[in-house]
Amino acid sequence: MSAEIICVGTEMLLGDILNSNAQYLAQQLAQLGIPHYYQTVVGDNPERLKEVIEIAASRVQILIFTGGLGPTPDDLTCETIADFFGVPLIERADIVEDIAEKFAQRGRIMSANNRKQALIPQGAEILPNPTGTAPGIIWQPRPGLTIFTFPGVPSEMYRMWTETAVPFLKSQGWGKEIIYSHSLRFWGIGESALAEKVAPYFNLTNPTVAPYAGKGEVRLRISAKATDATTAEALIAPIEKQLREIAGLDYYGIDNDTLAAVVGNLLRSAGATLSVAESCTGGGLGQMLTEISGSSDYFWGGVIAYDNSVKVGLLGVNPEDLEEFGAVSAIVAEQMAIGVKNRLSTTWGLSITGIAGPTGATETKPVGLVYIGLAGPGNEVISFEHRFGTIRGRSLIRYVSANTALDHLRRHLLTS
Amino acid sequence: MSAEIICVGTEMLLGDILNSNAQYLAQQLAQLGIPHYYQTVVGDNPERLKEVIEIAASRVQILIFTGGLGPTPDDLTCETIADFFGVPLIERADIVEDIAEKFAQRGRIMSANNRKQALIPQGAEILPNPTGTAPGIIWQPRPGLTIFTFPGVPSEMYRMWTETAVPFLKSQGWGKEIIYSHSLRFWGIGESALAEKVAPYFNLTNPTVAPYAGKGEVRLRISAKATDATTAEALIAPIEKQLREIAGLDYYGIDNDTLAAVVGNLLRSAGATLSVAESCTGGGLGQMLTEISGSSDYFWGGVIAYDNSVKVGLLGVNPEDLEEFGAVSAIVAEQMAIGVKNRLSTTWGLSITGIAGPTGATETKPVGLVYIGLAGPGNEVISFEHRFGTIRGRSLIRYVSANTALDHLRRHLLTS
Repeated sequence: MSAEIICVGTEMLLGDILNSNAQYLAQQLAQLGIPHYYQTVVGDNPERLKEVIEIAASRVQILIFTGGLGPTPDDLTCETIADFFGVPLIERADIVEDIAEKFAQRGRIMSANNRKQALIPQGAEILPNPTGTAPGIIWQPRPGLTIFTFPGVPSEMYRMWTETAVPFLKSQGWGKEIIYSHSLRFWGIGESALAEKVAPYFNLTNPTVAPYAGKGEVRLRISAKATDATTAEALIAPIEKQLREIAGLDYYGIDNDTLAAVVGNLLRSAGATLSVAESCTGGGLGQMLTEISGSSDYFWGGVIAYDNSVKVGLLGVNPEDLEEFGAVSAIVAEQMAIGVKNRLSTTWGLSITGIAGPTGATETKPVGLVYIGLAGPGNEVISFEHRFGTIRGRSLIRYVSANTALDHLRRHLLTS
Repeated sequence: MSAEIICVGTEMLLGDILNSNAQYLAQQLAQLGIPHYYQTVVGDNPERLKEVIEIAASRVQILIFTGGLGPTPDDLTCETIADFFGVPLIERADIVEDIAEKFAQRGRIMSANNRKQALIPQGAEILPNPTGTAPGIIWQPRPGLTIFTFPGVPSEMYRMWTETAVPFLKSQGWGKEIIYSHSLRFWGIGESALAEKVAPYFNLTNPTVAPYAGKGEVRLRISAKATDATTAEALIAPIEKQLREIAGLDYYGIDNDTLAAVVGNLLRSAGATLSVAESCTGGGLGQMLTEISGSSDYFWGGVIAYDNSVKVGLLGVNPEDLEEFGAVSAIVAEQMAIGVKNRLSTTWGLSITGIAGPTGATETKPVGLVYIGLAGPGNEVISFEHRFGTIRGRSLIRYVSANTALDHLRRHLLTS
């Protein structure tokens, strides 16, 4: 028994809107434990929609339609479904009344167009729409096949799904088994390297483990099937623990954790404070740190030292070293870190200087060359050289640089 | 002749990611005038993928696949397509070399897994991937059927599409009638206010004009249908000019222009320089300014004054004023602006202090209250009070604050 999501609307074929309804329904089906293997998008065209219904009805048992329930002539979903199964449409007086009342509430007169929305296939149940005029249906046109229709407006669909479709599906025995997932997040290791380390886990069946690439990072998704969240968590926990042990320091967080949040929590627990000195990231590291509400507990601020005069004037970088080694060098990164730490009187100082490109490279210093400096409580200072490559582009090099700086501090806080 | 978009990945069936690739490709196909009537999503499952290929190959002539080209065992798109058409996979030495080189550039060793990405169906052309390791293919497995494959990573797919697939499709005669658009961008005016001002333009047919809401801003999209870009531009140009005249200073740029880029160009033309002092945006304003390559021509840097001690110590804000008026006040914004301007010796100093929420509000200072300070060449300083409301959320309040600061400077540079 499985489901197919069928989204109807020419606007998706033109790329005018993002199909967020499919994502919502996919998550919901997963949570209820209803397998679904296909999603189909088709335009407001009765012939092609019938083709799609024929294919879907031959391979799944639950068809979930969104879109095409509106009052305009191109909204054809309900009548096309009825037509496909050879069943007449019936005007339901209770729907006409409900639509008229909704118009009255908004101080408007119901137009003749809207009467169309009161037509539903003979034998179908109404799937009430509390916020809009288009109701959906729940219908068994033949044994072993159930059809749901929803309007395309996401907010209307969400309420109809949770208030009527979910209770109905649960009454049919679904939702006894749910799929529950956690994503483990890793920084500083590539997808294939991590995949090799944890390869045997990809053969597990419950929970399953699968890798996927995030922005500059890798994730492992652990998904369990169980009767409830607690049981699923119990299946996931030992695998999660083992994967974290295998990955060691490359693992940094779970689900919506960011490196900025993880580092922030470590600083808060240690009663430590942080300041930053940024050249090529130009404020992006501070921006990430302060995206976390409450970051003022540990983040004091910093200096955006984009021009060399700021590196010298505000951070105390030695002009002779700037001249000799260049702004993108380990020694300048170290002086920036120690400079900001001392100027702002924080426990830690973290700095970034590099070439984000596409211009600014020299013979010896390619785009993507980045130095990160870290100054600590005893004024000890270390630096790290990275080569993020020339192909990632300015924006991604800056993003990866800021997160890598946070990652160095994280590793340092965890091991020192 | 028509196309079908087939997105492969179990992560879409689980609702883990939004299928933005389908939207991108849909827009691109529309621009080239290639009809497409179906989009299909299927998981990383060879049997079901073969079923989907069979259906699609029977109803369209161009199949566009995204996803499933990665190095891990669940990435099966390429081999499943080859298997469906009964053609062997061939390891391409040039791809192996390209992948190895990309690993080397990042200072990493290519793992055995990645060799899999060098396998392509016999007879297929390589669709080069300049930024990632997985190449795509362009392949005619039989007369009248063309297959494209792309990785699921959007940034990789976009470049491969524009650099290789589009020229190929044009060489096949597509794109003779194009839809060509410009988006005019506005800051500081709401969608309905702008729509009222330009209402008559919404009745035009070629070009058409349509408003849409961007992130914190409004846009007007002008779209023309024509045989080539020059003809389309000629249709668009007079309408664009009229709309810009009607909007006046609320218009700031076109298409991919950002306020940071527009302000940067104004500063560069004036031979002026800028520094910033940021409290609630925590570096986000500097981040925006430096996202522009070449911003070092006019942007010197700044101070992230998240903690009040930094406002006093590095920017010279008067501690008594901080005490009396609070950090979120016009007087502190002004002192921050003048402080950073003088410390960094720039023509202009721009500051932001506010309450981004969700915590930090007081009885008189709600979430969303933001002060922007602007200090100019003669040490004159002005400030602006904004109330961005409590419902936008921390991240959007910070984004809108930084852009509004840039917008004030833009208007000032244009009128003074």
